[in-house]
Amino acid sequence: MKVKLLSITKNAEDVIEQAARTCYLSYDKATDNSKEKMIKMLINSDHTSVLEHSYATFRVDGASRSFTHQIVRHRLASFSQQSQRYVDESNFHYVIPPSIQENPDALKLFESTMKTIEESYIKLREMNIKKEDARFLLPNAIESIIVISANFREWRHIFELRCSMHAQWEIRQVALEMLKILKEKAPHTFGDFELDEKTQTAVIKK
Amino acid sequence: MKVKLLSITKNAEDVIEQAARTCYLSYDKATDNSKEKMIKMLINSDHTSVLEHSYATFRVDGASRSFTHQIVRHRLASFSQQSQRYVDESNFHYVIPPSIQENPDALKLFESTMKTIEESYIKLREMNIKKEDARFLLPNAIESIIVISANFREWRHIFELRCSMHAQWEIRQVALEMLKILKEKAPHTFGDFELDEKTQTAVIKK
Amino acid sequence: MKVKLLSITKNAEDVIEQAARTCYLSYDKATDNSKEKMIKMLINSDHTSVLEHSYATFRVDGASRSFTHQIVRHRLASFSQQSQRYVDESNFHYVIPPSIQENPDALKLFESTMKTIEESYIKLREMNIKKEDARFLLPNAIESIIVISANFREWRHIFELRCSMHAQWEIRQVALEMLKILKEKAPHTFGDFELDEKTQTAVIKK
Amino acid sequence: MKVKLLSITKNAEDVIEQAARTCYLSYDKATDNSKEKMIKMLINSDHTSVLEHSYATFRVDGASRSFTHQIVRHRLASFSQQSQRYVDESNFHYVIPPSIQENPDALKLFESTMKTIEESYIKLREMNIKKEDARFLLPNAIESIIVISANFREWRHIFELRCSMHAQWEIRQVALEMLKILKEKAPHTFGDFELDEKTQTAVIKK
Repeated sequence: MKVKLLSITKNAEDVIEQAARTCYLSYDKATDNSKEKMIKMLINSDHTSVLEHSYATFRVDGASRSFTHQIVRHRLASFSQQSQRYVDESNFHYVIPPSIQENPDALKLFESTMKTIEESYIKLREMNIKKEDARFLLPNAIESIIVISANFREWRHIFELRCSMHAQWEIRQVALEMLKILKEKAPHTFGDFELDEKTQTAVIKK
Repeated sequence: MKVKLLSITKNAEDVIEQAARTCYLSYDKATDNSKEKMIKMLINSDHTSVLEHSYATFRVDGASRSFTHQIVRHRLASFSQQSQRYVDESNFHYVIPPSIQENPDALKLFESTMKTIEESYIKLREMNIKKEDARFLLPNAIESIIVISANFREWRHIFELRCSMHAQWEIRQVALEMLKILKEKAPHTFGDFELDEKTQTAVIKK
Repeated sequence: MKVKLLSITKNAEDVIEQAARTCYLSYDKATDNSKEKMIKMLINSDHTSVLEHSYATFRVDGASRSFTHQIVRHRLASFSQQSQRYVDESNFHYVIPPSIQENPDALKLFESTMKTIEESYIKLREMNIKKEDARFLLPNAIESIIVISANFREWRHIFELRCSMHAQWEIRQVALEMLKILKEKAPHTFGDFELDEKTQTAVIKK
Repeated sequence: MKVKLLSITKNAEDVIEQAARTCYLSYDKATDNSKEKMIKMLINSDHTSVLEHSYATFRVDGASRSFTHQIVRHRLASFSQQSQRYVDESNFHYVIPPSIQENPDALKLFESTMKTIEESYIKLREMNIKKEDARFLLPNAIESIIVISANFREWRHIFELRCSMHAQWEIRQVALEMLKILKEKAPHTFGDFELDEKTQTAVIKK
């Protein structure tokens, strides 16, 4: 699975500061390092609507359709996903859950089932069954590509939910990769998320 | 597949009329049969935000996860779906696309693949693989249950997209069932959708 | 100011329970008094998306345009508001803030200013200035009527923000009236909000 | 009134093309000038969700609170507005509608009413009435500053509604300024809007 930052608002935290200073007409108080304090204040006082003025867009390549079915439930984000109605899946790749990877019997069974599914898909296609119908036997494990855009406020919300220890492992893995990138690109907006590499989780440090 | 209306705003079209008359302070012009004219006017003049004050909730039982992955993309609706993380799928039911149903060879192949998947799922579960990981081999065809709520404006939007001849057959089938119910329950709001039973589509009659 | 419940989902909390039981396929566990426990669990585990399947619609009559400009910022709700482009405001009513009501000098000044504005509006109308332009001199204090619909999850969010001691007095007053009604109509969903009549606030009791 | 572009997605139309090519896995078909054709196709086939991956943020300085009350009704956009609760308005500026500007009697009356309001506001403040209460007599005409962010799909929707001849003159004026800027910065996405300088409107050229 690969997470790539496709796009991010230029000078994202300056845009946020400028928007915030509009509310209070305090443009004159902006200095070279005032945005850190301003953004911290916005977050602490829950005035996070101002964070909506900056955006980030990621491409996630090689996560499963289980993951995509979960992530598209975030209704304040925007999605463009590889379509199984239009793309032939004859040579599909698939995600193997760690608990199966670590269990040789389970792994063997999983892989042979994937093989069977792949062969059936190819045969259905040879029988002239359309892609949009042949896909009915494709598994949740199949890899997909999805482009996801959201504003910084929504990314914080996604990370809060999806980097927690209660989140499912795959969506947590993807969310953590995104968070690492945004912590670097917008350190004041995402700096209060503390990553724990050992448990592969992140929580907001109060 | 079964579509059931779980809930609908009581006197839905009266609520819409009352909300509309708030904009113009024209409560005094409401008569016993003024709502038909009012709702027609709202739709024709594209003042459809007023239709947001009435709602309908459906349960769809036995459509595939292909369908649910599509329908949850409607971000102005609300969804609660049977979870593969919490519900055991050892005896799952599945949807067979008509093009496969009609082709004996394809059907045989499809059913045997489903059988293989089911057996593998059961075995993985016996190996103590958790539901949330065993589900990775479950197919798009698997049946799900989903509860969907939306306001009347959004339902009109969904029907416009999903009852059209360009829509995929399964989502069109579900949307048509819902539309039939709403045409009966809120005839002025959905009456301009004209169903064609032969092509299994519906379009807005101008 | 008058708050009137125009519409609420019939058996609202049963609908929520049924939607929740869809996620876990636990319909068989529903009993006569299981919804209280279920809704409490949904709220405590922050699985509040299920609360989106029930709705309430209010009409607020006689709050100011200051209030309406604030409330329409809740983007997950639906609004229909008395229009100053279409409704003549020659005999407008207005809201007097308590701090002005309690100060005789301020009150006298406030009322005479309202009188001046009213007279100017009427004269502009007599000069054939259109309503949509004459309204430019109308004050924030002017009374308006607005119909507001939202689902129960959003109402909880609105009450959390707007019933707090940090909220502005007028929006808090309106929100409290709504909350009282919903606590009665949907006691399990709104029962954890504790009203304090003395401070005219409400907070969630943990 | 001044409209300033604060921020726009870098290489906005390339991001859109890349997102679109994800749906069809057709990255290899991207050429130096393929984005024009791609974006035209997305718009013509109403596959405009892909346009959501690029964003623009404007600051509007000196439009009235009538305008801001209208524009904040666009619930898919993000707003930060100068607050009358926190900013003192003792020396407020105001917008004069053209129909009043052109009528000497109306103009004189309008200006003297504004003067009265200003003086009353200042006196209320001197009586220690808080800004959040003194503002109750401020007029719709008062100038405000607002920062507005939206994705390209939503901007197209806003322009379609607000640049039309049915739109109110002030919001149309602001929308036209924004449209001019976006036509230059993202010519393929906004190029089909045809401006008519004489009527101060814009419509989509089919």
